[in-house]
Formats: sequence, C-alpha cells, structure tokens
Amino acid sequence: MRSTSPHEAVPATTPAASLVFTTVLSHGPLTRIEIARRTGLSSAAVTKAVRPLMEVGYLVEGVDEGARPAVGRPANPVRVDAGRALFIGIKVTGDEIIAVLADLCCRIRVARHVRLTGREPGAVLPSVTALVHELLTEADGFGVQVRGLGIAVSGDVDRAAGVVRYSPFLEWRDVPLAEIVETATGLPVTVDNDVRALTVAEQWFGAGVGLSDFALVTVGAGIGCGLVVHGRVVSGAHGVAGEIGHLSIDPLGPPCHCGNNGCVEAIAADPAILRAVRSATGRPVTTAAEALELARSGDPGVREVYARAGEAIGRAIGSVVNLLGSERVIISGEGLAAYDLFAEGIRDAFAASAFGTAAQCDVMTRPLPFEEWARGAAATAIQSFIGSDTH
Amino acid sequence: MRSTSPHEAVPATTPAASLVFTTVLSHGPLTRIEIARRTGLSSAAVTKAVRPLMEVGYLVEGVDEGARPAVGRPANPVRVDAGRALFIGIKVTGDEIIAVLADLCCRIRVARHVRLTGREPGAVLPSVTALVHELLTEADGFGVQVRGLGIAVSGDVDRAAGVVRYSPFLEWRDVPLAEIVETATGLPVTVDNDVRALTVAEQWFGAGVGLSDFALVTVGAGIGCGLVVHGRVVSGAHGVAGEIGHLSIDPLGPPCHCGNNGCVEAIAADPAILRAVRSATGRPVTTAAEALELARSGDPGVREVYARAGEAIGRAIGSVVNLLGSERVIISGEGLAAYDLFAEGIRDAFAASAFGTAAQCDVMTRPLPFEEWARGAAATAIQSFIGSDTH
Ligand SMILES: [Zn+2]
Ligand SMILES: [Zn+2]
Repeated sequence: MRSTSPHEAVPATTPAASLVFTTVLSHGPLTRIEIARRTGLSSAAVTKAVRPLMEVGYLVEGVDEGARPAVGRPANPVRVDAGRALFIGIKVTGDEIIAVLADLCCRIRVARHVRLTGREPGAVLPSVTALVHELLTEADGFGVQVRGLGIAVSGDVDRAAGVVRYSPFLEWRDVPLAEIVETATGLPVTVDNDVRALTVAEQWFGAGVGLSDFALVTVGAGIGCGLVVHGRVVSGAHGVAGEIGHLSIDPLGPPCHCGNNGCVEAIAADPAILRAVRSATGRPVTTAAEALELARSGDPGVREVYARAGEAIGRAIGSVVNLLGSERVIISGEGLAAYDLFAEGIRDAFAASAFGTAAQCDVMTRPLPFEEWARGAAATAIQSFIGSDTH
Repeated sequence: MRSTSPHEAVPATTPAASLVFTTVLSHGPLTRIEIARRTGLSSAAVTKAVRPLMEVGYLVEGVDEGARPAVGRPANPVRVDAGRALFIGIKVTGDEIIAVLADLCCRIRVARHVRLTGREPGAVLPSVTALVHELLTEADGFGVQVRGLGIAVSGDVDRAAGVVRYSPFLEWRDVPLAEIVETATGLPVTVDNDVRALTVAEQWFGAGVGLSDFALVTVGAGIGCGLVVHGRVVSGAHGVAGEIGHLSIDPLGPPCHCGNNGCVEAIAADPAILRAVRSATGRPVTTAAEALELARSGDPGVREVYARAGEAIGRAIGSVVNLLGSERVIISGEGLAAYDLFAEGIRDAFAASAFGTAAQCDVMTRPLPFEEWARGAAATAIQSFIGSDTH
C-alpha cells in the first residue's frame, strides 16, 4: 500500500459517505428517504453522511443542474454536482492511448486518442504524461480542478500498490506506474486492470446499474471478465480475479500462453481464431477483419472456427453463472464485431451448461468503445477520491 | 419472501449490530476499539451497536464466562453470552437426520442422529418434528429458550422463501419446508442449502475465520461448493451458486444427471467413481468402501479412476480461484476418506490451471463430520436471529 497522497481528499470518506455518494451518482437525484431505502442505512446515517458532502459541494440539492440550492429538507432530492471536480481517465491498449476528461458524474467532457510508437514503458509513459498535461490545460478552460487520474491497463495490476505486475500485451513486468505518473503529473493516480475499471463504469452508469451480482465478459485480443458480487467488483486475495480467459474447458484443447491446455483464450481470442482460420484455410490470414470477411463470404471451415469460439465463450459464461448465480452477463469488447458468428455457439453452450435456475441469467451484448474503457479508468479515480475503493 | 415470524427478535438488527455481533462471535472477547478496527466502523457506531445487544444480554463484558459484568468502559472486552439463547440445527442426508442443540456461540450442547426409513417429505418431516421436540425438552433442562431452528438440505434451496426447490438426493421438489416445520414446532425456521450452511460455520468458527474470500469444496455423494466473497456467502441472484459440481471440464467427458457432459460431478462424485471402477474392473462394486479397498490393494485401473477424479476436482478448484482469487480453498466431505488417492491429481491439476498469483491460494483439507453440518444449520438460525442474513 502506498502512502496517502498529500492531495486534498473528500472530508468524509466513511463507508456510509462513499455508499451514499455512489448511490446518488448512479441513481440520483434521490431524496434522503430514497437513499436510505437503497443503501439500507438509517435516515439518521444518511443525513449524517450527506451533510459534509454538501458542505464541500459534491452533493447539492435540487433536480436541475442550474437550480439554486434549496434549504436542506429531507424531502428535497440530492444529486452530484457534476461540475464540482474533474478527473482524467486513461486506457492504454497495445496500439494507442485513449484519454478522457470526465466530470464528477463521470460524464466525458473531452476525449483524446494518441497512437503509440512502442509498447515499452519508455515509449508509453511520455505519451501518457503529455496527454495528461493537454487535458489539464483543457480543465483550466472549465475553471475546475482535476482531482485524480485513473489509468487502466490489461493484465495483472495491483491497485493498492499502484503497480502493473504483468501485462502480457504491453510486455510490462513490475512497473510502479502510479508512482511514476504521480511524480510526472502531480495528480493522485489510481492504476487498475482495464476490465475491472470498465466494470466499475458499467456498475455505476451502464448495464450493471442496480444489480448486486453481474459479470462483464470482454471478447477480442484477449478474453477478460469483471465480476461484481455483493455489489462490489471482485479483485481477489492475490490480485488475480475474473480470469475467465484461463478457465480450461477442454483437456485436449490447444495450448495456451499461460502454460495450460484448452483455455477459453486459446480457443476464442483473436490470435487463437486467426491461428485456427489459417490452419482451416491454408491462407496467410493475419487480421480479424480478414478472418471475418472469409466467414461472411460463407467459408464453412472459418465459420466453424467462430462457432467453436462461441461455444467456448458460452461454456465459460456457464461456469461463471453456475458458481456465482449472476443476474446478468454483459458481453462486450471489440470481438462483438463477430457476434453474429459467435451467437448461436454462445447461446447453445450456455443453455447446456447453466445449472437449474442459473439459466435465468440475462446474457446480453453491449458495444463499449474504448472511450468507455477510459471512462472506467476515470471512475476508478473517482472511487479513490471518494474512498469507495477501500470499503 | 415470507412474512416476518411473530417471534421476538434481537432489538437492534441494523447492519452495524449484525456485523458487531458476528465479529465478536468469531473473534471475541474484543474491546470496542478492536471491534472498530476489525469492522471498519467508527468507535461511536460500535458503542451504539453494542449497547442494545448488551441490554438484552447477548453481549456481555468480561473475558470469562463466570465473570461478573463490569462497568461499561471502552477498554473492557466484550463477548457473546453463550448461554443466553439456544438454537437447533438439523442436517438432512439421504440416510439420516443429524440434529444439534447449540448455544448462542454455536457450540454444540447436545447431538442426536436418527436413521431415515424413507426420503419423501412424508417420511422425513415427522422425524424432524420428533427430533425438534426432543431437543426442546433438552433445552428446558438448561432453562434457556430455543430462539430458532435451521435446517440444511442439499440441492437448490430458496432461503428467503423457505422452500426446497429441488433436492436430487431427497427427490424433493418445491417443498415449503420452513412453513411446514414452523407450523409443527412453533419455532422460526431458516432453510438453506447444506453446503452454504456449513460455509457459514467455517466462516464464523472454522478455517474461514478472518478471511473475506474463501471457498469450501465438499467431495462425496455429490461435489458441492460454498463461496465467500467480500466476507459474505454467495447465494446467487436466482438461488443457484457454488455449483462447482456442474462445471463442465471436458466436452467428451461422461454424461451428467444435469444433462450436460463432462461435469466434475460426473467424474469425481461417488456414483461416478463407482461406475468407472465397475467398468475398469468388471466387478459389481457398489460402495465407496469397496472401491477404496480395491484402490488400496493396488489395482492400477481403480487407482487411475481416483487419479482422474482428483484431477477433475483440481481443475475445478483452479476455475474457482481464477475467477475469484480466493485466499483459501478448504476441501471437505466424506470423500476425504479417499484423499490420499485424490491428492496428487488435485495438486497437479490445480497447479496447471491456476493463473499467475492465483496459484498462491492455500488449498487445504479439513474433515467435518455431519454434526458440523448440523452446526452450520444452527449458524444459519443464529444469522436469521441476528439479522445478518439480510444485509
Ligand atoms: Zn490459459
Ligand atoms: Zn452436471
């Protein structure tokens, strides 16, 4: 655990205050009575939590943005004052950096993309710093202070320590990213796994709002998964969680980069699909777009590759739901482009593997462009700011 | 959700009061300062939660059972007064009913076993009622009131509704067990899945104490699993959760009673092992004891059956840990009798399938006789009594 940054924090980072803030963020405007009902807190506890948040202006009374704050009566609805603080969210992919400037309601005000010339920290970090300074200048234009920076990176990320332990796509190992970027930007930095960060955004603002148990499955270059259980994103006792890509579903399946056999990622991620398409067709297919085109032109061997990938994803979703009884599974990621080719395999394999009432889980798709992932990173910065990451 | 029973409840069933009570139950005696540190509540919130629990005598001050209550000072340790209330816990297996009378610290005071003559509700329920009345008479001898009854049954149990939706072993479907037994005994009844109930006991008093993320895997007639995530037992949005037995780990594996192929239960549960042993040896083996004897006598085909079962269990544990990053996995159940034959397969398959730091999970075995399962049922009754099931 890093020592606390010297930056001003929210005055009341009690569990109740964080819970109240995030509840109003997702569901507001809400009266204190509605907050009490949704959080399970007593009216007295809600009032006590709301007061300091109103004093510093993060919560205000009144439904409309422009409305004049009314006198503090329990019946007056409370909402987050979006313009009271800004946050920067950054998603680092293998090819580019996506950065957004988001307000306290985590609405995107400005978005920027920068292509990467290399993946090593020495190539990525100067671009990150330059983007942050660009967005800080934009923030000056709004006349509002940037209170935190969230960075989302794929792989094994130790959020508490601020360290990227291992990112296979970036080929990073043990990079103390938070410390480096804090020094370079002067902002408090939160580093998290990218799928977990996107899951926070889905929980607060997306298809997970109001659900205490759901899963987000991302399909594309890798197969990722963010899990929400009992209303909180699962991060695991040792930092690893949601590794749906490395559920082994076939002992005779293809070898995986993790060393095991038959992992979902070794069957259904882009590189695995391309490998299988090359082997089925004998053609030197190297991009997902080419593989998709062959499938859409009706090549039965290529279609079969996608069907098998869909089946692997469906069986993996079945495993998640059998263990956790999730209410909803959201499928997203750039792999959605091939969803028409996956769909039947996913549906049939999920139906075959879901046990009993677990099959009632709502499996849905939802396109989430990379700006949404960057927004997720901003959401983790808001989490740190409001203290909801530590409860 | 059933309507609340008319029985007297704990006066303060706020989330804080439940959390304080269960923390003192697992870790007490504790000073209020230690309670605040362990629960993350403020000192004021702890003091407020402790007071009504002391007023009704569920918590008392002083380290020793016999000690005279001291004056209420923050530095005085607080403990649960074990003798203040009694609970009955019942575990129904396919062959017998195990019932225990437990005190408020969930310590077993009396245990009873009754063999079943049939598995249908008409045969089981009169035995349950008779056992409860026997234990109520025992409770009279202690001069303490029985405040709740917990019943643990394998299968799909809707705790909130008090209904056994489907128990394959008992061949029960949609039995409103809580209502029936409440009417017959006059006690508030909590019905839960047996593995989940045992998981509560492990969390409060066993190998899960102090862990916020662990799994209990039970091996035997079936393969079950109780999951604790973020400090709470997972029960799933639709009632199904922890169905590790129906993770399909091999698409070409044997058919399972659930309709899928290659489920862990179809490879590693007693009936599957017996089937595979018969097929490997050509002998009419019908009991786990016979199969074990053949394996211990060195029959390579039979040993191979156990090795494959161990491998299936190890791969399933790997899936749990890759998804949840559990800190510990506790293996228990009557199948532990064959653990020497499973051990290598479990260890190797877990090592191969655990991803990255997930492999740091502590996988351990722990024998838990059926009295412990009945104790788990009593723990669910204490949960309902103290209101910690609803938060
Ligand atoms: Zn793998
Ligand atoms: Zn099955």
